[in-house]
Amino acid sequence: MKKIVLRPIGIIRTPYKTHKGMPIQGKFKPGVKGKAVLFQKYAQGLKDLEGFSHAIFLWHVHKSKEERLLTKPFMEDVVHGVFATRSPHRPNHIGFSIVKLESVKGNVVTFSEVDMLDKTPLLDIKPYMAQVDSRKNVGTGWAQKHLKKGGMPKRAIHK
Amino acid sequence: MKKIVLRPIGIIRTPYKTHKGMPIQGKFKPGVKGKAVLFQKYAQGLKDLEGFSHAIFLWHVHKSKEERLLTKPFMEDVVHGVFATRSPHRPNHIGFSIVKLESVKGNVVTFSEVDMLDKTPLLDIKPYMAQVDSRKNVGTGWAQKHLKKGGMPKRAIHK
Repeated sequence: MKKIVLRPIGIIRTPYKTHKGMPIQGKFKPGVKGKAVLFQKYAQGLKDLEGFSHAIFLWHVHKSKEERLLTKPFMEDVVHGVFATRSPHRPNHIGFSIVKLESVKGNVVTFSEVDMLDKTPLLDIKPYMAQVDSRKNVGTGWAQKHLKKGGMPKRAIHK
Repeated sequence: MKKIVLRPIGIIRTPYKTHKGMPIQGKFKPGVKGKAVLFQKYAQGLKDLEGFSHAIFLWHVHKSKEERLLTKPFMEDVVHGVFATRSPHRPNHIGFSIVKLESVKGNVVTFSEVDMLDKTPLLDIKPYMAQVDSRKNVGTGWAQKHLKKGGMPKRAIHK
């Protein structure tokens, strides 16, 4: 298959220089703020994003060079197929986060619900639309026991 | 910024040879089925995905060569910044779909809620977890008027 070449649209600045203290999902440590700083040439693409409360960030998991097909998720002690997990050590290393938008000014998007390292390359921003992105009656396989009633799993923050 | 090189993990087969009849979001035409056929070397990564009812597919928008910073969404008559829309004509051309899983057998994932063209290169599969991926009290800016009460917008299907 033909290779696909991407170029970052900006850089994500966060308080997490290392994994220590970083949540596995931003929702598990909601107060922390980050900034997505787009390269100036992409700033115009942010027009009207401020009307949305949440956004989808796609980013490059730049600190992982590993691809594991079977992997132990952070919440678990047993392995699962990588495509049944949110592990960063995956083919193509694309990270996916739903973030809460705080402000959009010029080329800078300030957000909370941060779950990526400082200086992460940003690949895309898409507006979150609950009407199509929120689903009810969802089965979550092995993760169900860790995520009961929307609570926080025992292992939610990197040590 | 350094470029990032991706390689597809498989190919998505759908009934949509062209955009005609394809919904802008799979949920708007739920009965249609597709198949994600992974290359054999990635098949092991699907272990335990069958426990999930929904998955996130990331794919390459291989038919668009365009990057528009301001774009008119399919539902609208006015332009918005591309990062405030789900337009396919975006930097990095990464498509995002939430699909309903029908079965996982060997290297083949059968799914419904299809919104991509036949032969779309697949980049990643992630399990959908309502506990972290569904959000309440969400503001959806310009799209709100088209997506009232979870209903179907007037323009939901390509002609």
